[in-house]
Amino acid sequence: MKIKVINPNTTWSMTEKIGEAARAVASPGTEITAVSPQMGPVSIEGFHDEAFAAIGVVDEVRKGEAEGYDGYVVACFGDPGLAAAREVARGPVIGIAEAAMHAASIIGTGFSIISTLERSRPMMEHLVHAYGMEHFCRSIRMTDMAVLDLEVEGSNAQKLVINECRKAIEEDHSDSVLLGCAGMSDLMAQVSREIGAPAIDGVSAGVKFVEALVGLGLGTAKRQGYASPLPKEYTGAFSAFTPT
Amino acid sequence: MKIKVINPNTTWSMTEKIGEAARAVASPGTEITAVSPQMGPVSIEGFHDEAFAAIGVVDEVRKGEAEGYDGYVVACFGDPGLAAAREVARGPVIGIAEAAMHAASIIGTGFSIISTLERSRPMMEHLVHAYGMEHFCRSIRMTDMAVLDLEVEGSNAQKLVINECRKAIEEDHSDSVLLGCAGMSDLMAQVSREIGAPAIDGVSAGVKFVEALVGLGLGTAKRQGYASPLPKEYTGAFSAFTPT
Amino acid sequence: MKIKVINPNTTWSMTEKIGEAARAVASPGTEITAVSPQMGPVSIEGFHDEAFAAIGVVDEVRKGEAEGYDGYVVACFGDPGLAAAREVARGPVIGIAEAAMHAASIIGTGFSIISTLERSRPMMEHLVHAYGMEHFCRSIRMTDMAVLDLEVEGSNAQKLVINECRKAIEEDHSDSVLLGCAGMSDLMAQVSREIGAPAIDGVSAGVKFVEALVGLGLGTAKRQGYASPLPKEYTGAFSAFTPT
Amino acid sequence: MKIKVINPNTTWSMTEKIGEAARAVASPGTEITAVSPQMGPVSIEGFHDEAFAAIGVVDEVRKGEAEGYDGYVVACFGDPGLAAAREVARGPVIGIAEAAMHAASIIGTGFSIISTLERSRPMMEHLVHAYGMEHFCRSIRMTDMAVLDLEVEGSNAQKLVINECRKAIEEDHSDSVLLGCAGMSDLMAQVSREIGAPAIDGVSAGVKFVEALVGLGLGTAKRQGYASPLPKEYTGAFSAFTPT
Amino acid sequence: MKIKVINPNTTWSMTEKIGEAARAVASPGTEITAVSPQMGPVSIEGFHDEAFAAIGVVDEVRKGEAEGYDGYVVACFGDPGLAAAREVARGPVIGIAEAAMHAASIIGTGFSIISTLERSRPMMEHLVHAYGMEHFCRSIRMTDMAVLDLEVEGSNAQKLVINECRKAIEEDHSDSVLLGCAGMSDLMAQVSREIGAPAIDGVSAGVKFVEALVGLGLGTAKRQGYASPLPKEYTGAFSAFTPT
Amino acid sequence: MKIKVINPNTTWSMTEKIGEAARAVASPGTEITAVSPQMGPVSIEGFHDEAFAAIGVVDEVRKGEAEGYDGYVVACFGDPGLAAAREVARGPVIGIAEAAMHAASIIGTGFSIISTLERSRPMMEHLVHAYGMEHFCRSIRMTDMAVLDLEVEGSNAQKLVINECRKAIEEDHSDSVLLGCAGMSDLMAQVSREIGAPAIDGVSAGVKFVEALVGLGLGTAKRQGYASPLPKEYTGAFSAFTPT
Repeated sequence: MKIKVINPNTTWSMTEKIGEAARAVASPGTEITAVSPQMGPVSIEGFHDEAFAAIGVVDEVRKGEAEGYDGYVVACFGDPGLAAAREVARGPVIGIAEAAMHAASIIGTGFSIISTLERSRPMMEHLVHAYGMEHFCRSIRMTDMAVLDLEVEGSNAQKLVINECRKAIEEDHSDSVLLGCAGMSDLMAQVSREIGAPAIDGVSAGVKFVEALVGLGLGTAKRQGYASPLPKEYTGAFSAFTPT
Repeated sequence: MKIKVINPNTTWSMTEKIGEAARAVASPGTEITAVSPQMGPVSIEGFHDEAFAAIGVVDEVRKGEAEGYDGYVVACFGDPGLAAAREVARGPVIGIAEAAMHAASIIGTGFSIISTLERSRPMMEHLVHAYGMEHFCRSIRMTDMAVLDLEVEGSNAQKLVINECRKAIEEDHSDSVLLGCAGMSDLMAQVSREIGAPAIDGVSAGVKFVEALVGLGLGTAKRQGYASPLPKEYTGAFSAFTPT
Repeated sequence: MKIKVINPNTTWSMTEKIGEAARAVASPGTEITAVSPQMGPVSIEGFHDEAFAAIGVVDEVRKGEAEGYDGYVVACFGDPGLAAAREVARGPVIGIAEAAMHAASIIGTGFSIISTLERSRPMMEHLVHAYGMEHFCRSIRMTDMAVLDLEVEGSNAQKLVINECRKAIEEDHSDSVLLGCAGMSDLMAQVSREIGAPAIDGVSAGVKFVEALVGLGLGTAKRQGYASPLPKEYTGAFSAFTPT
Repeated sequence: MKIKVINPNTTWSMTEKIGEAARAVASPGTEITAVSPQMGPVSIEGFHDEAFAAIGVVDEVRKGEAEGYDGYVVACFGDPGLAAAREVARGPVIGIAEAAMHAASIIGTGFSIISTLERSRPMMEHLVHAYGMEHFCRSIRMTDMAVLDLEVEGSNAQKLVINECRKAIEEDHSDSVLLGCAGMSDLMAQVSREIGAPAIDGVSAGVKFVEALVGLGLGTAKRQGYASPLPKEYTGAFSAFTPT
Repeated sequence: MKIKVINPNTTWSMTEKIGEAARAVASPGTEITAVSPQMGPVSIEGFHDEAFAAIGVVDEVRKGEAEGYDGYVVACFGDPGLAAAREVARGPVIGIAEAAMHAASIIGTGFSIISTLERSRPMMEHLVHAYGMEHFCRSIRMTDMAVLDLEVEGSNAQKLVINECRKAIEEDHSDSVLLGCAGMSDLMAQVSREIGAPAIDGVSAGVKFVEALVGLGLGTAKRQGYASPLPKEYTGAFSAFTPT
Repeated sequence: MKIKVINPNTTWSMTEKIGEAARAVASPGTEITAVSPQMGPVSIEGFHDEAFAAIGVVDEVRKGEAEGYDGYVVACFGDPGLAAAREVARGPVIGIAEAAMHAASIIGTGFSIISTLERSRPMMEHLVHAYGMEHFCRSIRMTDMAVLDLEVEGSNAQKLVINECRKAIEEDHSDSVLLGCAGMSDLMAQVSREIGAPAIDGVSAGVKFVEALVGLGLGTAKRQGYASPLPKEYTGAFSAFTPT
């Protein structure tokens, strides 16, 4: 099985970290390719970043279809471009926020999301609402550090994350925490250990859920909202993306 | 006051129709400019089309800020790129689905949406949910005609639309109908007359609500999710969109 | 265009303040008349006050129809009598809580309501729920001062309001605040300035939204719940209100 | 125990029927007084009727407090004036829509409401939403007959009601029906028998629930939204209602 | 009328307390029998305890049908086995969480639940959600004491309960409190007095609501989800429970 | 990895079918054991059946923990005993309704459930509500055949199922269907083929999701509602289940 893990931002150090997290949980026989798009924001911290990242995600899925991938993980906690990517893919496409929330709702009674900049909070609230997870999500805690701070060696980012995770368990009645940024995908084991409760990395969860769906013979449903894009002209700079 | 009405698709015949609808309701002193992006899909009938259209919307708002526009209307019933556009704009940005739903919820007890292809239904359901309009929306009726059929003279598109609008009033307990495509913006008066109930065109509603908000001195809130995009590198084909 | 702004309480000093706020934002050509009913509570701080104020609101709309008004604003943050008034009116009728919430949901990702006595909290919760605004309303903060304290020169009412507005922005993740009492309608500019975020006065918003709806040719829908009152006898002290 | 059953409309033939239904279920030792207000609409079929009926309800509760009543039933399926009446009462006040919905949610998995004019549908939808009963209410079926048709001997009103009740059970997956008008309070036994499923009359249910609450020593909570009306001037025609 | 009050746990000292609370509010002519099942957990503090307690509840209802009971109260604040018991019963069956929430939603604008171990919180959240009470429930406060601590004379359990009840009123905007454990059923009067607001014991409320429903001639609806169990074999240790 | 698939009813022919479905999708290295409890109903078609089946499920998980299982699938579409079983298990426990709904919400925009007896509808509605899937579930279609009809060779059960699945796709705007009974687990491929849209069997989905969670190192969260049962006495016939 070939799974493409798409880091929607263009910071390749993060892409590598994401790839490692993905490969660490992949089943024997699953081939992981981690990529960043050829264009787009170096980090995703708002709706504007997301809009551009979405194109990169779609582009990578489009190429992935030609390359024979069986499924895709969108590795940013805002799940940018997810619905559009699903129109392009035959196989399943999952976002890491989506994957992490589903996992948490199966193993526990309520989760908290720990993430980065305060300004990204509404992105996550929107997803919680759209995925029907309001009764499972007990809090969203933003550390107010930038996404790329997670890439800086020697920063106190990790400490900040663990600190908020601990508060989520102790103050918000949560029994698991979601690592609300793909840049935290290397922290799953450590955070779990430190807080004594499951910490869920969506990249890892996404890979396993795609494996599960492919293993079930389930691809994206092609009869309603995720039907293949209708053939029509895309003009100007986007002519290369014209659906055929 | 200068309002930019952005038709997110690149079919300029529709853009002209939209511009006419906008100008027909604009107050004296309001200058309407109707545009299509320089790139993107010729019609918007799914999430994939929307993802690309969103970039065009953001681009037009970005340029609009330099040109001194006071507010923006996103003239496609899926409201593509709305949140991203709000990050870029100082003034208000409104989507036509949003505008039409707000208007309907003020003048009536329940509305129906009449729109185009069945495959676009989930886009609208998503908006109804996201805007908190579930208790007002009594039905979504798709005519299953393509968006561009509305541009074909002599087609029976208009008849199909009126037919579904009538059913919405008579069978679904609605007291108003929303014209669920910017390509129907010329039908507001006629549909209202034929069905004996308000038919709401979101383009018209969008223009008046932007006028209202600008008149109130209200622009987009700049402290949370709609704060200006953070300065960061956008790579590759999107480098021109790097926020500064 | 003639808009009647109805202060549902009978404190005319507040009515004048409301009238000033309304006129300050009205478009050229819009004629504002601010009135209080001929009967009813001097302030509205609970459901009992609201029930009586509702009659006054309906009465003013009834008279307004004879006087040729194009639309109405109900200028109390509990929106008393709104549905009943809509049955009577041909044109649009909007409540100031409703108007403020709609405006906030268009310009931002989440608002707080700042209002007066703790006992009025459930009135506002009810409106948030009824208008589908639960996903936008992040907090309701009551200052616990009486409505008429806002009319007392030299009181610290204004300071209390600003203080809670600031906390809403800083502690509750809101990006705008709603001034939850018509008696605060003179504070919109000052509060905005002090907290560095939009403060929305519903009176002002109500006037602009009525202008917008009238400009669209939209009146109240007359086919379902807001159809004109059926002709029937009203007995006793209410015989003057018998619908005909 | 003394319970006042208030028919909010002023049609005394209906008041008598309501009184009979109430007395038929009252416990030994419960004294039922059924009244109509001294003013107001002869039937309640919309929000306008409700606004005026609410004053009558409050007035009857106000007088009832002086007369030593222990609790109140508001006998109209729109529950007019309920919140205001609760501010005035020490004991419990229940609406018949409220009572019927609570009863149905305890004895079954889902109910339908059968009522009168189509225009009254939004009143009932509003109550279903406000009482949190959306997951229990499977349908609202309007017979489109007027309330007072139920008072006309020899009309086919009863047949129409039974017909819709039967459809609710057979087509809507409901296991009980709510008689959605106090004018149907004499039909409870007959409808139940004919459809082979519980038909719930809110007047009867209201009386028993008030008895239950009084028996528990529970009156209306007096610390938040239902605290006694604040002493303040009510002007003009309403001066007699000034809270003290 | 004969009402069986079933304490789903097997601690008979608690059963006696529950029986006393039930008898204290029962109407003349109502015969109360308080029982514990012949098997099951000595206290109920989680889903596992509930699963086993449910069998005991069903067993007691099954026997109760043979013994001619008119209705049942399930006296544990998790309402274990309620739906299953309803299939077996002709008369009404009510849970004490259900009864308390219904009572609170009629007499006030918002309640808090005060209960025992933190681990039981999700059980209560689930009920609040399932009963449609989310708009009425303002907080759930766990004292983190064990259920059986309430049975220990001289413990500070009572003080802990009153303390949290007071905070619920003062900090959470609630106007009533629900005693979230049948073991608190003796505290209703005292807590009410101490906090100056209604404290609702579900055992008492359950008895009165069953009396009310029986008085209405309403039993459990027998046409949908609560139809009698289909005759089928139950194997092994459960063969005695085979429905016939 | 060892996964125990628990058919909560005691019809072993169904258990074998379930085991086959499970083994057909299990990864190499996953060992599937399909069992029925030693006691309980031969089919599960209501809340009463569920209550007894839940004990069997818990018992099998309890034994499974001693036997070293890594995870569990509860193979009945009402997910009986799920929460209780989670308290007992270290590893993940998933219900087949839960698994199927999660899968459908990832691969499509809206699903329908096709199931057996009308009386079981409320069980499924309850799960849809509890899992937050209301925005994804477009219809529940009951065939009104008994569960064990699916075990009768030569019955028209299969045809009935396919017929309703087809209607769900064509009339209800769904893009996938859930096979709402473990007895349909052999139909996944055939139904998919016949209706041209994904048919999801929860047994298969459950196995793959458990594999995924175990592969992630995620077991049931042990800090809140799913913490291990507290040690306490279980009396009488249930003394063997006393948690230790």
